[in-house]
Amino acid sequence: MSKTNAGRFFEDYRVGQEIVHAVPRTISGGERAMYHALYPARHAVHSSDEFARSVGYSQAPLDDLIAFHVVFGKTVPDVSLNAVANLGYAEGEFLRPVFAGDTLTATSTVIGLKQNSSGKTGVVYVRTRGENQRGEVVLSYVRWVMVRKRDVDAPAFETVVPQLATHVLPKDLPVLQGVDFSRYDFDLAGEAHRWSDYEIGEVIDHVDGVTMEDAEHMLATRLWQNTAKVHFDQTARPDGRRLIYGGHVISMARALSFNGLANAQRIIAINSGAHANPCYAGDTVRAWSEVLDKAELDAPNVGALRLRLVATKGSAGELRGDDGKYLPEILLDLDYWAIVPK
Amino acid sequence: MSKTNAGRFFEDYRVGQEIVHAVPRTISGGERAMYHALYPARHAVHSSDEFARSVGYSQAPLDDLIAFHVVFGKTVPDVSLNAVANLGYAEGEFLRPVFAGDTLTATSTVIGLKQNSSGKTGVVYVRTRGENQRGEVVLSYVRWVMVRKRDVDAPAFETVVPQLATHVLPKDLPVLQGVDFSRYDFDLAGEAHRWSDYEIGEVIDHVDGVTMEDAEHMLATRLWQNTAKVHFDQTARPDGRRLIYGGHVISMARALSFNGLANAQRIIAINSGAHANPCYAGDTVRAWSEVLDKAELDAPNVGALRLRLVATKGSAGELRGDDGKYLPEILLDLDYWAIVPK
Amino acid sequence: MSKTNAGRFFEDYRVGQEIVHAVPRTISGGERAMYHALYPARHAVHSSDEFARSVGYSQAPLDDLIAFHVVFGKTVPDVSLNAVANLGYAEGEFLRPVFAGDTLTATSTVIGLKQNSSGKTGVVYVRTRGENQRGEVVLSYVRWVMVRKRDVDAPAFETVVPQLATHVLPKDLPVLQGVDFSRYDFDLAGEAHRWSDYEIGEVIDHVDGVTMEDAEHMLATRLWQNTAKVHFDQTARPDGRRLIYGGHVISMARALSFNGLANAQRIIAINSGAHANPCYAGDTVRAWSEVLDKAELDAPNVGALRLRLVATKGSAGELRGDDGKYLPEILLDLDYWAIVPK
Repeated sequence: MSKTNAGRFFEDYRVGQEIVHAVPRTISGGERAMYHALYPARHAVHSSDEFARSVGYSQAPLDDLIAFHVVFGKTVPDVSLNAVANLGYAEGEFLRPVFAGDTLTATSTVIGLKQNSSGKTGVVYVRTRGENQRGEVVLSYVRWVMVRKRDVDAPAFETVVPQLATHVLPKDLPVLQGVDFSRYDFDLAGEAHRWSDYEIGEVIDHVDGVTMEDAEHMLATRLWQNTAKVHFDQTARPDGRRLIYGGHVISMARALSFNGLANAQRIIAINSGAHANPCYAGDTVRAWSEVLDKAELDAPNVGALRLRLVATKGSAGELRGDDGKYLPEILLDLDYWAIVPK
Repeated sequence: MSKTNAGRFFEDYRVGQEIVHAVPRTISGGERAMYHALYPARHAVHSSDEFARSVGYSQAPLDDLIAFHVVFGKTVPDVSLNAVANLGYAEGEFLRPVFAGDTLTATSTVIGLKQNSSGKTGVVYVRTRGENQRGEVVLSYVRWVMVRKRDVDAPAFETVVPQLATHVLPKDLPVLQGVDFSRYDFDLAGEAHRWSDYEIGEVIDHVDGVTMEDAEHMLATRLWQNTAKVHFDQTARPDGRRLIYGGHVISMARALSFNGLANAQRIIAINSGAHANPCYAGDTVRAWSEVLDKAELDAPNVGALRLRLVATKGSAGELRGDDGKYLPEILLDLDYWAIVPK
Repeated sequence: MSKTNAGRFFEDYRVGQEIVHAVPRTISGGERAMYHALYPARHAVHSSDEFARSVGYSQAPLDDLIAFHVVFGKTVPDVSLNAVANLGYAEGEFLRPVFAGDTLTATSTVIGLKQNSSGKTGVVYVRTRGENQRGEVVLSYVRWVMVRKRDVDAPAFETVVPQLATHVLPKDLPVLQGVDFSRYDFDLAGEAHRWSDYEIGEVIDHVDGVTMEDAEHMLATRLWQNTAKVHFDQTARPDGRRLIYGGHVISMARALSFNGLANAQRIIAINSGAHANPCYAGDTVRAWSEVLDKAELDAPNVGALRLRLVATKGSAGELRGDDGKYLPEILLDLDYWAIVPK
């Protein structure tokens, strides 16, 4: 029995600790095809090598969320196997595109620890980095989770709560090497809307809905080598339902957002994110976006939009009730930066 | 709200109009693997690079229906988002094989418009061309759909109904460059039946059945970036069922036809097609074929069979009732040409 | 009707008969990605080109069970289409790794025939070889199945029952060309347990469970071009359920065994195997392993473990009842050799 990984508990973490996550993963066109089968993903830079070359990439970079899911999945056995809740994300930066053929590894540093007043759980903050086979960081983000203690009587550590940016500032957005949207083909991309056409405060209803299936979210979650039991084993929860991996909802909502944000080609930063309510098979997921901010970027004809992406079982534009809490139909509230042609 | 695509209505089309469809798509071995997971596809030319080389291809061409689905999927947002019915296909020609690594784009020309007597809808005829990254046309076909009018009171256009061939004539079948079936290995292909073994009028029951699943048809339909709402959103229809994309039924029937038509290696033309009745998860789909015609081709040891491929929930050989209408169990009636070793 | 394959019956086999199976298959990164989506497979040698290179492979070999399934699938139309039961496996040897880009073919030799006393069925023993595009044998195994007779009154052949090894002896294990685990990175592989840490008789509960889905096992089974009707057609069985391909359970259990056997990197031999009870959608599959034996290998820092891998709907460690028969919750009892770093 002692051969298996029971996961870390709260008292197993130390601030400053480095965790090398298993298992490195080579990604091919196969993962891209699976991604396109699982989500209605259509952003042209990710869909076509030719389109990608016309705007400065050597070939089509994989959908940025593939990199996120692959890196995130590796952290699960070390960070969230005994997690009670996935509390938040911050300072997510997609520093380099990932291409078919790349091999990704992941490492995390514990940057904060805070025992909860109950004494039964604590919050663990980690900064996770995903690297490619050349040792280049492709993705970096902070995540914090609530983790069970093994021993409720274990003494509490000194509390360390990291100072995290509320969002990635425009000046801190990743540099886009070689990207040039001067020859961007709006017909092929699917919509005519440029950076200047979007206004801060604008809300876009992405119209379409997708009904969730157990077979699909399990395929997705396994594809990222995410092994959290609740996604796969219907006996693991009292209600006999399998909880859908929050990342599946992120990718579904992002793909649905094509309808209205077809030109929001790449995600370059994640500012924050909340999985507001659980999602299950049978739920029909819709998405809407709000333009939160706009930024200039140092690449020809490229601008950035800061977007709130909401996945919901309800209607566009509604987010919180009178009590300030997320409405029960809200599944995801994600704040990110995407690049858009000017 | 105005950022999203509401689709074209009948009065938005003009005869002669050219529509460049978004989004170009690079296809890899990943899409081939997904196709093999979704359908029991086993035709040797598409399954094996070695087999394909032995008959004159540089590598295994992708299943021809992959090209069809990819091109068709691109037309959906521009042609059939507001379609009431997919009425027919004609003059489909698979002009060049598509290989892993190719990038496909699609363009349509409106070639006919006819308002219906109700005044609420009209029929739109388009000729669609799929091209690879070298600008070579790989696929061309005519499709006509019934589309809603935005404004019932909008004046009717002059009716233009194109003259369409009832089927592609043998002399008009695509030229098979480099294909030579002289070294065709019947053992590896799976059956011994040659072109000369098939007789006009012969009916082949393909025996096997497959029970449909929502997760599977949604994976397939998304893979082709087909976004029609009724396939994904169980709240979109009063009966709470998701309509299966007709192309999913085509591919399933074609793959089932291996048993009896293992040597009908490539589809080179689609003469006509009708989605006779809707298909839903839980239906068990079977297939049968009828040999409609035979033709000589100008390639060594290669002949063509014109085949009726029927997908049904019932028995082989039955197609229409006494009233001349398709029986309720008939799902698909497809008329195509395939190449067969002599 | 005569064009379709009705499969061979018992009296169609002769000892010494060679059967060339259709259809050759080129495997790409797409099949690997599908495998990772279908199973929680995480063994580092199969997951990462970089990791594989660090231990002597040119790139990541495909999961060994991919080769097994592809070869097995090809034999179905010739060997088990009229099978009543899949009785056993022996002398399975994974002689060479299979890589993305390889094309596999399969051939079987009938090595034994034994009519059952009922006169209605007989046991067929075949030795099957899978070869790559260079004609190198990548996999060889013996399988025996109970096959129906077409004509109950057909005379019985002389009984030939092959002498089969109860297991592959250490001295007969495949040679591992170029493999060197001296630079094996245990952090990246996911566990610290070496060959010397495992003791004969040790039982490992792999903890996690996965609930089966019809859509998933059908995708898997088709991916291997396995066409046995009972897996796909819910009308084929009186209970309206689709029987899950036994190989799907093998791959699921093997993938689950990562938790405790993360370093059992490659399967190099299958000693025996029994599909103890049928598996259906809705079943939650768990796995446990028992260390049956250990062997030295002639490659630097590489040892072998002989493992019993059990898939169960019940608890770890339980296998047979007081009557010596498999407990009803046991799905699979597989005996294999895997390589492990020393």
